[in-house]
Amino acid sequence: MKILILNGPNLNLLGKREPEIYGTQTFEDFFEELKTDFPDVVLSYFQSNHEGALIDKIHEVGFDYEGIVFNAGGYTHTSVALADAVKGVTTPVIEVHISNVMERESFRHHSYLTPVCVAHYIGLGLDGYKEGIRYLLNNKS
Amino acid sequence: MKILILNGPNLNLLGKREPEIYGTQTFEDFFEELKTDFPDVVLSYFQSNHEGALIDKIHEVGFDYEGIVFNAGGYTHTSVALADAVKGVTTPVIEVHISNVMERESFRHHSYLTPVCVAHYIGLGLDGYKEGIRYLLNNKS
Amino acid sequence: MKILILNGPNLNLLGKREPEIYGTQTFEDFFEELKTDFPDVVLSYFQSNHEGALIDKIHEVGFDYEGIVFNAGGYTHTSVALADAVKGVTTPVIEVHISNVMERESFRHHSYLTPVCVAHYIGLGLDGYKEGIRYLLNNKS
Amino acid sequence: MKILILNGPNLNLLGKREPEIYGTQTFEDFFEELKTDFPDVVLSYFQSNHEGALIDKIHEVGFDYEGIVFNAGGYTHTSVALADAVKGVTTPVIEVHISNVMERESFRHHSYLTPVCVAHYIGLGLDGYKEGIRYLLNNKS
Amino acid sequence: MKILILNGPNLNLLGKREPEIYGTQTFEDFFEELKTDFPDVVLSYFQSNHEGALIDKIHEVGFDYEGIVFNAGGYTHTSVALADAVKGVTTPVIEVHISNVMERESFRHHSYLTPVCVAHYIGLGLDGYKEGIRYLLNNKS
Amino acid sequence: MKILILNGPNLNLLGKREPEIYGTQTFEDFFEELKTDFPDVVLSYFQSNHEGALIDKIHEVGFDYEGIVFNAGGYTHTSVALADAVKGVTTPVIEVHISNVMERESFRHHSYLTPVCVAHYIGLGLDGYKEGIRYLLNNKS
Amino acid sequence: MKILILNGPNLNLLGKREPEIYGTQTFEDFFEELKTDFPDVVLSYFQSNHEGALIDKIHEVGFDYEGIVFNAGGYTHTSVALADAVKGVTTPVIEVHISNVMERESFRHHSYLTPVCVAHYIGLGLDGYKEGIRYLLNNKS
Amino acid sequence: MKILILNGPNLNLLGKREPEIYGTQTFEDFFEELKTDFPDVVLSYFQSNHEGALIDKIHEVGFDYEGIVFNAGGYTHTSVALADAVKGVTTPVIEVHISNVMERESFRHHSYLTPVCVAHYIGLGLDGYKEGIRYLLNNKS
Amino acid sequence: MKILILNGPNLNLLGKREPEIYGTQTFEDFFEELKTDFPDVVLSYFQSNHEGALIDKIHEVGFDYEGIVFNAGGYTHTSVALADAVKGVTTPVIEVHISNVMERESFRHHSYLTPVCVAHYIGLGLDGYKEGIRYLLNNKS
Amino acid sequence: MKILILNGPNLNLLGKREPEIYGTQTFEDFFEELKTDFPDVVLSYFQSNHEGALIDKIHEVGFDYEGIVFNAGGYTHTSVALADAVKGVTTPVIEVHISNVMERESFRHHSYLTPVCVAHYIGLGLDGYKEGIRYLLNNKS
Amino acid sequence: MKILILNGPNLNLLGKREPEIYGTQTFEDFFEELKTDFPDVVLSYFQSNHEGALIDKIHEVGFDYEGIVFNAGGYTHTSVALADAVKGVTTPVIEVHISNVMERESFRHHSYLTPVCVAHYIGLGLDGYKEGIRYLLNNKS
Amino acid sequence: MKILILNGPNLNLLGKREPEIYGTQTFEDFFEELKTDFPDVVLSYFQSNHEGALIDKIHEVGFDYEGIVFNAGGYTHTSVALADAVKGVTTPVIEVHISNVMERESFRHHSYLTPVCVAHYIGLGLDGYKEGIRYLLNNKS
Repeated sequence: MKILILNGPNLNLLGKREPEIYGTQTFEDFFEELKTDFPDVVLSYFQSNHEGALIDKIHEVGFDYEGIVFNAGGYTHTSVALADAVKGVTTPVIEVHISNVMERESFRHHSYLTPVCVAHYIGLGLDGYKEGIRYLLNNKS
Repeated sequence: MKILILNGPNLNLLGKREPEIYGTQTFEDFFEELKTDFPDVVLSYFQSNHEGALIDKIHEVGFDYEGIVFNAGGYTHTSVALADAVKGVTTPVIEVHISNVMERESFRHHSYLTPVCVAHYIGLGLDGYKEGIRYLLNNKS
Repeated sequence: MKILILNGPNLNLLGKREPEIYGTQTFEDFFEELKTDFPDVVLSYFQSNHEGALIDKIHEVGFDYEGIVFNAGGYTHTSVALADAVKGVTTPVIEVHISNVMERESFRHHSYLTPVCVAHYIGLGLDGYKEGIRYLLNNKS
Repeated sequence: MKILILNGPNLNLLGKREPEIYGTQTFEDFFEELKTDFPDVVLSYFQSNHEGALIDKIHEVGFDYEGIVFNAGGYTHTSVALADAVKGVTTPVIEVHISNVMERESFRHHSYLTPVCVAHYIGLGLDGYKEGIRYLLNNKS
Repeated sequence: MKILILNGPNLNLLGKREPEIYGTQTFEDFFEELKTDFPDVVLSYFQSNHEGALIDKIHEVGFDYEGIVFNAGGYTHTSVALADAVKGVTTPVIEVHISNVMERESFRHHSYLTPVCVAHYIGLGLDGYKEGIRYLLNNKS
Repeated sequence: MKILILNGPNLNLLGKREPEIYGTQTFEDFFEELKTDFPDVVLSYFQSNHEGALIDKIHEVGFDYEGIVFNAGGYTHTSVALADAVKGVTTPVIEVHISNVMERESFRHHSYLTPVCVAHYIGLGLDGYKEGIRYLLNNKS
Repeated sequence: MKILILNGPNLNLLGKREPEIYGTQTFEDFFEELKTDFPDVVLSYFQSNHEGALIDKIHEVGFDYEGIVFNAGGYTHTSVALADAVKGVTTPVIEVHISNVMERESFRHHSYLTPVCVAHYIGLGLDGYKEGIRYLLNNKS
Repeated sequence: MKILILNGPNLNLLGKREPEIYGTQTFEDFFEELKTDFPDVVLSYFQSNHEGALIDKIHEVGFDYEGIVFNAGGYTHTSVALADAVKGVTTPVIEVHISNVMERESFRHHSYLTPVCVAHYIGLGLDGYKEGIRYLLNNKS
Repeated sequence: MKILILNGPNLNLLGKREPEIYGTQTFEDFFEELKTDFPDVVLSYFQSNHEGALIDKIHEVGFDYEGIVFNAGGYTHTSVALADAVKGVTTPVIEVHISNVMERESFRHHSYLTPVCVAHYIGLGLDGYKEGIRYLLNNKS
Repeated sequence: MKILILNGPNLNLLGKREPEIYGTQTFEDFFEELKTDFPDVVLSYFQSNHEGALIDKIHEVGFDYEGIVFNAGGYTHTSVALADAVKGVTTPVIEVHISNVMERESFRHHSYLTPVCVAHYIGLGLDGYKEGIRYLLNNKS
Repeated sequence: MKILILNGPNLNLLGKREPEIYGTQTFEDFFEELKTDFPDVVLSYFQSNHEGALIDKIHEVGFDYEGIVFNAGGYTHTSVALADAVKGVTTPVIEVHISNVMERESFRHHSYLTPVCVAHYIGLGLDGYKEGIRYLLNNKS
Repeated sequence: MKILILNGPNLNLLGKREPEIYGTQTFEDFFEELKTDFPDVVLSYFQSNHEGALIDKIHEVGFDYEGIVFNAGGYTHTSVALADAVKGVTTPVIEVHISNVMERESFRHHSYLTPVCVAHYIGLGLDGYKEGIRYLLNNKS
């Protein structure tokens, strides 16, 4: 079972940005933890700050993989193109947000991805990624 | 582990309403299936068309149970009081919608419950309830 | 032929509220008049200030009766759940308002019930109920 | 002089909800304090999470009592029916909110009750109830 | 008793426009049916695509006839002048729409005619015209 | 000096519509009064309920006459085409409304004609027409 | 091949209105040029300031002609009835605007015709009409 | 004569995405057909999911080529930067959409490209591209 | 002291785009002028039409440099991701716009960057960049 | 105990403006009545039509007095500066409106003062001022 | 007959501000011209940049003078208090704007004064003041 | 070189208002510091809570001084008249806000001054004033 963990803009700053708040663990470290937690899943990881690169990646894996766990960062609120990409592929996509975006600025309350994703984990911290993988494991056909 | 399945208005019509579309399975039947699927969980079920009765029930179990899987039906879009109830208790609450509300009328696109629930399963049919239980199992402390 | 007259919140105050304007006739009195006017119809009457009780009643009669003549009062403008109830049953429902709601506050200009009811009598006073019954008599299949 | 203290949804959680913030005093305890502070007033207390039960209560006392001190909780922002009930009775009604709702989410900035109540105490904590009673004492005819 | 059936823009296409859907019956054919159904009413029929011609007609009959059954088509949503015409005459006017306009594009959800008409039949197909006539028969003074 | 008095939809009802309020004087009568008051002006009068006929008339006189005093009735609020006609001719146009439209329904608060007319008399009753003529007399080049 | 050139309100002023800007060529002159440019097409021309007359014309030719090249002028932005007419016929309709309406007042940015026309030429001056004819020639079945 | 066919995000999925609906023809296949249809035009093709790459390409050819036929996909509705690029070059740009975007979600009804393109083909399927080339052939100076 | 001059989409066209208005000086030429004016600052320059590349660059220098002078072009108004990048780094960022964006189209009046930048130079032409550098020199710690 | 009665614009017209409606009592007369009613309070009175003078006065007394009873008139709805002044001082401020502003024009429904005042008396006539003083007496620390 | 010419903020700059556009004539010079043109009227002139001073002046003359010709400058669009002042006095007030405010920024399209003034001269330059005086002469009772 | 430091409403409270947060330094003290920091500039200081007095001051110095550094406080968000004053004079004006207004209430996000000022320092504390002076020094002609 192949699952892609896909991260959008600025998520590469994890561990570097405000470490007194977010801690010093990078997402790469966390990804190792994910692989340990789910030994039976072939997990891959891709991060990009480029909207186009994220679309390319979704196209690349979106007809073969069993799932994508996707945190689109700031593109969540502005990208019709990314939502079209998710809708255009056959792989189910999970929407994840580390913080509770509904409690932040009002422009973060709308998500173009919500109608095209199958499950949503919002405000659970990094645990949202684990939930996304578990969801896909439970629903593999 | 005690979990409440909580259903809001009109969900008691399942199996009776447009059976050629929704099938003839009632939620009571489905609840038996849930209990079989999760033999280690103490599942209870409550449905009401009364907003106040739903709030009463959340208060009743919301400091003892390990989780509530909640489909608030039409109250999702209009009830500040229900959202306040969810916020006021300590039990984590999961938001479930059988259909993809984001693809229906625009007044169904906003949910007062989204900011106060911890996970969201939208448009997965009855499987959303199972996902909600699995989430709670994975996150019991 | 069985028809339910269904009244929502505050309509129980008729005859008591501002009697110099609305008169001293209660709805119970008027209901007697209705029964006299339509001797061949089995008329029943139910009023509640509880949104949930109105939904329960619609469910109870909504697969057997030939029609419901419904004045939802203030719930007209705020209740998705009531509209879902009307849509979920097979009995045709008539929308009645005693006053011309389009000439009152702007929050009364929108009705969740309009798209799910089959006829609408607005601002005709108590005669709207009679029109609703006549409509149902004319359209019984 | 008879005055009703009327509390809407979730206010029964006082003393139980986030006690480190709101304290451990329940509203029942506070009601005893109120009775002590106003020995010459016949105070009664009613709380319900049911919108319909609150309307029923307003109808019940609204032609006899000298005043109602009303904290409608989350129904403040969504209930046309409750505002219609207040307008339909002859007893004057005071609007109370414990917290300053104008500093919270924007959906709490609008109140259907403001145009139909005679005085408003917002953000004064439990003292708002005392102010409401004093206002009624000052204005008894 | 004289009643005018008044049709606005594009309703002359009935029977010609998408006949596989709307059938091949023209409104002229249907009007013959109406005359048969209501032998005691002097029915006349007028259709125009001209907003001004509709206003002229309303003025012409609006102080003599016992009623107008009016389907204003697209002008329903855009014409203040037609609504002023209806308000300016003494003959009661019934609003009819063949399809359920509330389920179509959002610009069809608002009607300038709703506040000035006495009854409304929406989404009943051609039966709406019959209902309109029956309403006028029931309410002739 | 040639001036056109131009009246839009429903203004032909003057004297007939609600005579207890608007009086029994028709606009034709008033027009005679206007001719008496301004003996040195060649006044003509045109009324139509047809938007197109009003545009035709503006085109017809709009390059020769010294002025048009225009009450567009309900088209004031909905007609881009009429405003384009006024802008397209060289004759100055005066906007007149008998009642104070700013105190009526909100859809009457916007006028497409305001930016293209040179003076505006609102809520002065029939005197607004006299003011319009006086303005044109004062400003003839 | 029969094509109608259809012009809405105020386009009859071409050559007369602000000739220093728009030139002295009338649309009638330009129509001669069109006939010379497309000798193999049976071109006809109709202009009206009457919304209803434009609808009548669309109905008249809309089941026989191979195309309509339509500049609806100010009705573009306000007429649901014209859009319904275009949708109701089988002849394809091309939307033309001489100026770039998107760079003018905001009320010109919305067109009821856009969803019901097959091609759109905006801001190309009179060449837009030629483009419309060419489009129809290229797409005749 | 050099013309660029420029495709934005997700258009590379053509032939792969929902083939039972969109067919199995890829855009590359269709491009061969275009070259056959227009043997006298030097056609080139570029597709990217990267907003920046589309801007780069417009800059690269936008001062030399005779035209660009551009389907910007989801960026149509969100990209000020792409519209600025089109405005910044001298080559005329044609806006093409395969489906009728005006009949889809409301966020697809606005296009930043409309004011800066010279012609628009919406909802014609792949024929829109051919129309764009023909337009450019007809208008080469 | 290291400062990055960062330019967003279409700013590479300077000197090439409408030279009769903007002159023939390229930004590269202007950058030489900047280096001459500020000999004690280590200035570097980066321009990209790719939103992602701009984010990458901000991450790259945003923990080491003393400042970034940033003209985000069209992304100013649409990019949540760029604003998140600016907020995520420790280097202060200055917002520059060559033209007065507040006097252009309304969609240019909102800037996602304003809340996250420390100073703003709008409508000063190329001098805005010099002001940005001076601000950073004045505020180095 | 020192309390300031502070009146904003146009309140000096009381007794002069529409005396058949508002009576001939001036506010100065009413102020004498206030002093009689509250003999133990040092009451002072200030009225100004100048927004700045009201702010100056709030600053002057706002650190010494025990309370301000403030009717800001038309500035209630437009003045951020006055609200900042109230927030900036330590004296508690009471908001008073003679008429029920919620039942007047919609621009009177919003008050910048509501979030910064401690109690609100709306639509009680001149009695609102008395209530304001009583509130301050009850809450003096 | 006494008439006040009342000018609001920044109108004292006339003759000084952009003299190449507005000329070098000050309003004081123009006022002399006004007095010459209307020798039988007692004209006075008052200008202030203070909203409160304008209200004071309206109160001062508003029960004695026969009219006020008022250009409120920027306060037109923001001052509820000024509109209340105009409504509170008995002297009729004329609204004048030198430029056509409807063709400027959208925040200038709304005027609080329009509903409370009796005539409106917009975009006529300084001639608007003369028209205002003529109107008052024509309508003196 | 003459520069005016201009402060709007409530800024006179500095040092007095919430001293535990804002410190005990008054703006007068800070002004001494400014004079020391910029010995070669003739600095003057003016503060008023009166919108009109601020306009008067801008007029007084706005054709002679080399610059104005302006913190308009609450008038920033509500005053068209102040923005017109800034636009009407020839002296360049700098906009300063001590706090980051973009992070406060939404009514503080819009500034009428932004389009008419040449530079903007937001959220830099009192240093914004120093930046404003430096900007003017750098740009003196």
